Amino acid sequence: MKKFFEPASVAVIGASATEGKIGYGIVRNLKNFSGSVYPINPNEESILGFDCYKSVLKVPVNIDLGVIAVPAKIVPKVLIECGRKKIKNVIIISAGFSEIGENKLENELIKISKKYKIRVMGPNNFGSVNPYNGLDTSFNFTMPDKGSVAFISQSGAIWAALSSWSLGKIGFSKFGSLGNMIDVDFADLIDYFNKDEMTKVIICYVEKIKDGKHFMDVCSKSKKPVIVIKAGKSEAGAKAALSHTGSLAGSYEIYSAAFKQCGVVLAETITEAFDKALFLSRQKLVGKGTVIITNGGGVGVLMTDHCVDNGLDVVSLPKSFFSGLKIPKICSKNNPIDVVGDADWDRYKLVFDRLRKFPKSYDNVTVIILENTRLNIEKTAFEILDFMEKSGKAVVCCFMGGDKLERAGNVLSKKGIPCFFEAERCANVLR
Amino acid sequence: MKKFFEPASVAVIGASATEGKIGYGIVRNLKNFSGSVYPINPNEESILGFDCYKSVLKVPVNIDLGVIAVPAKIVPKVLIECGRKKIKNVIIISAGFSEIGENKLENELIKISKKYKIRVMGPNNFGSVNPYNGLDTSFNFTMPDKGSVAFISQSGAIWAALSSWSLGKIGFSKFGSLGNMIDVDFADLIDYFNKDEMTKVIICYVEKIKDGKHFMDVCSKSKKPVIVIKAGKSEAGAKAALSHTGSLAGSYEIYSAAFKQCGVVLAETITEAFDKALFLSRQKLVGKGTVIITNGGGVGVLMTDHCVDNGLDVVSLPKSFFSGLKIPKICSKNNPIDVVGDADWDRYKLVFDRLRKFPKSYDNVTVIILENTRLNIEKTAFEILDFMEKSGKAVVCCFMGGDKLERAGNVLSKKGIPCFFEAERCANVLR
Repeated sequence: MKKFFEPASVAVIGASATEGKIGYGIVRNLKNFSGSVYPINPNEESILGFDCYKSVLKVPVNIDLGVIAVPAKIVPKVLIECGRKKIKNVIIISAGFSEIGENKLENELIKISKKYKIRVMGPNNFGSVNPYNGLDTSFNFTMPDKGSVAFISQSGAIWAALSSWSLGKIGFSKFGSLGNMIDVDFADLIDYFNKDEMTKVIICYVEKIKDGKHFMDVCSKSKKPVIVIKAGKSEAGAKAALSHTGSLAGSYEIYSAAFKQCGVVLAETITEAFDKALFLSRQKLVGKGTVIITNGGGVGVLMTDHCVDNGLDVVSLPKSFFSGLKIPKICSKNNPIDVVGDADWDRYKLVFDRLRKFPKSYDNVTVIILENTRLNIEKTAFEILDFMEKSGKAVVCCFMGGDKLERAGNVLSKKGIPCFFEAERCANVLR
Repeated sequence: MKKFFEPASVAVIGASATEGKIGYGIVRNLKNFSGSVYPINPNEESILGFDCYKSVLKVPVNIDLGVIAVPAKIVPKVLIECGRKKIKNVIIISAGFSEIGENKLENELIKISKKYKIRVMGPNNFGSVNPYNGLDTSFNFTMPDKGSVAFISQSGAIWAALSSWSLGKIGFSKFGSLGNMIDVDFADLIDYFNKDEMTKVIICYVEKIKDGKHFMDVCSKSKKPVIVIKAGKSEAGAKAALSHTGSLAGSYEIYSAAFKQCGVVLAETITEAFDKALFLSRQKLVGKGTVIITNGGGVGVLMTDHCVDNGLDVVSLPKSFFSGLKIPKICSKNNPIDVVGDADWDRYKLVFDRLRKFPKSYDNVTVIILENTRLNIEKTAFEILDFMEKSGKAVVCCFMGGDKLERAGNVLSKKGIPCFFEAERCANVLR
């Protein structure tokens, strides 16, 4: 799998000198790649500054990765040439196979790849991306930020949208598209990303899983959290998946039971998947017992509801927890702990100090901060971070207010403490 | 109720010249008010440029609205003075009543207000706001943007946070805080906001409702949509509400059945409430039948799932709908209608034209647009807006991508077509 993401050399079969063509977009994206690039096109001398070759067989050096973007009917021919050139990794971007009923043509590709022992991603694929070496074998327009989330997707368009949306928000370690999955599937990439040092957490956008047993085996053994967004949950959705990638989506009940069994984290939405990835890239959940600290009673009540809805236990704290705790009388000495509207960072700190002394009374902490000009948000954020790092407890935050609070929230999010405007997202992450 | 929001003159009883005091914050906020302001403080000559009076009885003109911010024990005395001055509307900002067990003191206020026929908001209240005349009787720091959402809240802190967060995103017509609700409650304000020209939709943050019958009567008659965020849903949440505003939250089942009966829209989260307010300020839902248009198959599948989860019907379109529709072969002629990744605005337009010809086949439309540099997003957004305005169908959008898409989405949102990154929020709004 490594050569799909860390090849020394890449050949683009079907490279084009015409802007707007897929074969042009791929070569353009490889301009920033740290390895060698060989465009293949019988009619061009050079493309975007790279020397062009009439066939892969004409390239004078070894090629680690072939990327195919020729019309569907010609794919078998150039795949054979890749085999003869001893290229062991090929990504087939070309579409027009089983997803439109051309199963016979797709079966030909399977035969060829087996004969020449080529590992194939695709066809109908959207390439591979590695922000650390500048590799982008797609015709997408955005290289995402470097980070620790590996994303595997059966949909290319979702990646195109996410890569652009994520800029400045979320960083990626790798992206791998699967397309029609005649060979490489989720399990292969999850297994590889487990060995990849840059990857801390893996998100999969799944329409179908080809080999359920292999998937479950790999996930069970995975040392890194695997988060799955499963599309085609409803009958209508399954029908839509069928006309999208020709996938039989299968029963959601069977999928979710299997996911649960092998330790996969299910996400209902894309937002939820990234929320959970953010949390799992730095923290882990140790139990259900939750303490809520708030400077606004109303949001404390809402958070309590959301925690209960998400299966958490808003624990009863012992009386000794509050005895001698120097917070004003009007503060609520219950859970939620309401430090009320005029609290500065030191009042939050007093509560954190208490939490450090009673580690057995709870498992995780939800910190709510509502806009308040008296509050030094930077110092408060520092106290939250310090508590998370030293206590070993899970921490999530709900910050509600203007720009200043949003900036502080972004800093915490980047340090692995998910910080949301919406209380429900906190509870959902802890779920 | 009108004089709580459109008084000609306001007296601030307990006004202070000391920065940081509540009585200072209120006078500061009234600097931008278009009417007259009379600070009341026996020890000051003037506060923030306003002449100061020793008591409301010393003010030489009529006063429409009294705002009380003196210590709890003195509140009965100054409330009697308001009565003698014939002030008919009083907001009691002062806290320290039933919410901390001082029920006797609170009962005194009830007796006085009845005797003098004063309508009272509070005590333990966070004031009233009217962005159209600059009135802000709270000590909050942010005047929100002008707009069409009226917000009624039992929690002041939530308003403080939302007013700041909402800047540049959501505009408000009025804000009314309720506090301990010894007199004015949700029904009074909903009734008044129905007559208020600036208000198109009403959001309530509810911990408890005092007079259920009155509330249901008013909501049943309301010509404007009423959206409720009900806190204290869970047993733990109800307990938290009790120590917040002394509210007995009551059974959520009873509440939600009652809400449904009187046409109230329930929102589980604050985000959901504002999403729905955005939609209802311009559109209304006519039925369950939903058509999904997408340029990315995967998000189409996810949207289908979310629609089904939210009780919508992803309708089967008749064959005649697609016959002669000039979109490429690889497009999916089903529902979701997949116009695929290389679609420009004209391909979306072809589908909208078809939808105009088949108005009986569906009730609402969900438009998904994934980042694609070929797509002219401004023209596409124009087509969406034009369709919504002329077809009479409900329209929501899911835009996934970078800044350019986000900007176009914000334009549509301001025109009343909610536009989200997350597919689930679209389906949830239509629910």
